[in-house]
Amino acid sequence: MLNPIGLISMQVARPFTPEHFAWFAKIKALGYDFIELLVPEPEDLDLAETRKAIEGSGLGVVLAARVSMQRNITSDDPAARATGLAYLKSAAAASAALGARILGGPLYGNPLVFAGRPPAPVSEDLRLRRIEWCVSALREAGAAAAEHGVTLAVEPLNRFETDFVSTTRQGIELIDLVGHANVRLMLDTFHMHMEDASLAEAIQVAGPRIAHFQANENHRGFVGTGSTDWVAVARALHAAGYEGPISLEPFRRDDQRIGIPVAQWRPPHEDESPKLRDSAALLRGVLAMGAHRL
Amino acid sequence: MLNPIGLISMQVARPFTPEHFAWFAKIKALGYDFIELLVPEPEDLDLAETRKAIEGSGLGVVLAARVSMQRNITSDDPAARATGLAYLKSAAAASAALGARILGGPLYGNPLVFAGRPPAPVSEDLRLRRIEWCVSALREAGAAAAEHGVTLAVEPLNRFETDFVSTTRQGIELIDLVGHANVRLMLDTFHMHMEDASLAEAIQVAGPRIAHFQANENHRGFVGTGSTDWVAVARALHAAGYEGPISLEPFRRDDQRIGIPVAQWRPPHEDESPKLRDSAALLRGVLAMGAHRL
Repeated sequence: MLNPIGLISMQVARPFTPEHFAWFAKIKALGYDFIELLVPEPEDLDLAETRKAIEGSGLGVVLAARVSMQRNITSDDPAARATGLAYLKSAAAASAALGARILGGPLYGNPLVFAGRPPAPVSEDLRLRRIEWCVSALREAGAAAAEHGVTLAVEPLNRFETDFVSTTRQGIELIDLVGHANVRLMLDTFHMHMEDASLAEAIQVAGPRIAHFQANENHRGFVGTGSTDWVAVARALHAAGYEGPISLEPFRRDDQRIGIPVAQWRPPHEDESPKLRDSAALLRGVLAMGAHRL
Repeated sequence: MLNPIGLISMQVARPFTPEHFAWFAKIKALGYDFIELLVPEPEDLDLAETRKAIEGSGLGVVLAARVSMQRNITSDDPAARATGLAYLKSAAAASAALGARILGGPLYGNPLVFAGRPPAPVSEDLRLRRIEWCVSALREAGAAAAEHGVTLAVEPLNRFETDFVSTTRQGIELIDLVGHANVRLMLDTFHMHMEDASLAEAIQVAGPRIAHFQANENHRGFVGTGSTDWVAVARALHAAGYEGPISLEPFRRDDQRIGIPVAQWRPPHEDESPKLRDSAALLRGVLAMGAHRL
């Protein structure tokens, strides 16, 4: 069976509010099976209404968590760790309320560039304590998620977005330390491109730990407009037995003006529907072929 | 004729001081033709002594500039622009004093993550003024560099390291706006991996503007340990007629422990000589083949 293919809500709007509900049907019509929704802040969305709108469109849903230095189970500030753990639990409850079974993202916290924080050396003592804090909180959050029938999918981020888990190997080590069936791994090819030697080898090594997957180009644009060997990625996912969701986040805009901050999220400035449709179709094509031999 | 191959001084030490001069001969023995030295701060190195040590080893030298928010020709703070311009002029003079003919780096300024600055929206008015400030300062610095027989090589950096010039196309646009023979382009495959659709196409489009080139893996490790198609890169450089220097900066360390900030520079913790030698040899191999047809 082929993996469900989804689209991140940030593709359309941020924050995503009820005025954007009409997008659910459009996304479905473009060939997507689910929406990956940022965990709604209370002021953005009513969960019951949102669930109704998503289900009405025929889409499934996956949730994406947003952490910060104050919502941070890896922090050396106990208050930030407590806030981070409470957030993961409430996000798992929100996932269940929305009908999602997967809550993904850099759940460990410790953002860098988007928190305006430069990379800095970490003492060995602090490094080890961070791991303890993170593992302990992920176990507790995983148990809470399990009660909701939700799986936490921990995503490594590139070296500029976090200083805690960047490579697939680091992600595997963390998941294995946690050792809870509801705490698994999420891989994003954009980050893998910057941190792993080979996408296919990393997928193979991660194997059954993978609970969620994001297919993004090396430059985070539309699948099929960059250098990624999607055939190799699809073949590796098939070899790993991965049948879970795959979502796209092509929210880099086609804008090459000098002085435009590429990493700054911007709303679309043109109709991107054809590229959205063709990216999903490309991915379905390589995934289908990934199951065949010559 | 084949391109000279060099190694960044950060591979060995940062700051690089006279106690590291013995490395010049070692680097030469590992198969390198030049050292790429960070522009010395006055307290680090005496220029005449350093030149003597480099020349004594038989290495050539290229200089790499270091900018900051205070050394920043793109800043909206006139004092930072003045400091940035004065720095570029003094760095060009230092290049000449050291015997270097190329001064490369993100000369436009505006660092992000390493300055602890998050990406933020830029008004169209400020964007246009930044371009004016930058173009005007690069013209003046280029004229000063020309008097020293030095070429400025402007390097696009990935979206997390700057918000001013990230793609090769943005770099080309900036160079063409400056329009000075001594202000040209530097390309680094690490950044290109994150920002360009195709390394080979970007090299081809940049063509004769390229004055300096850095060959780094997608993960910034040793050439040959990642996903880069070095044969395609070498063929593109040959097609572009590029005979200038190519340097390596493989200062990502082989360390996959959780919680180690990958972007934080660290000194080598093992003898990396075999990988340094083999990376240079690989590059020479593909460069030589790049000139052949089947």
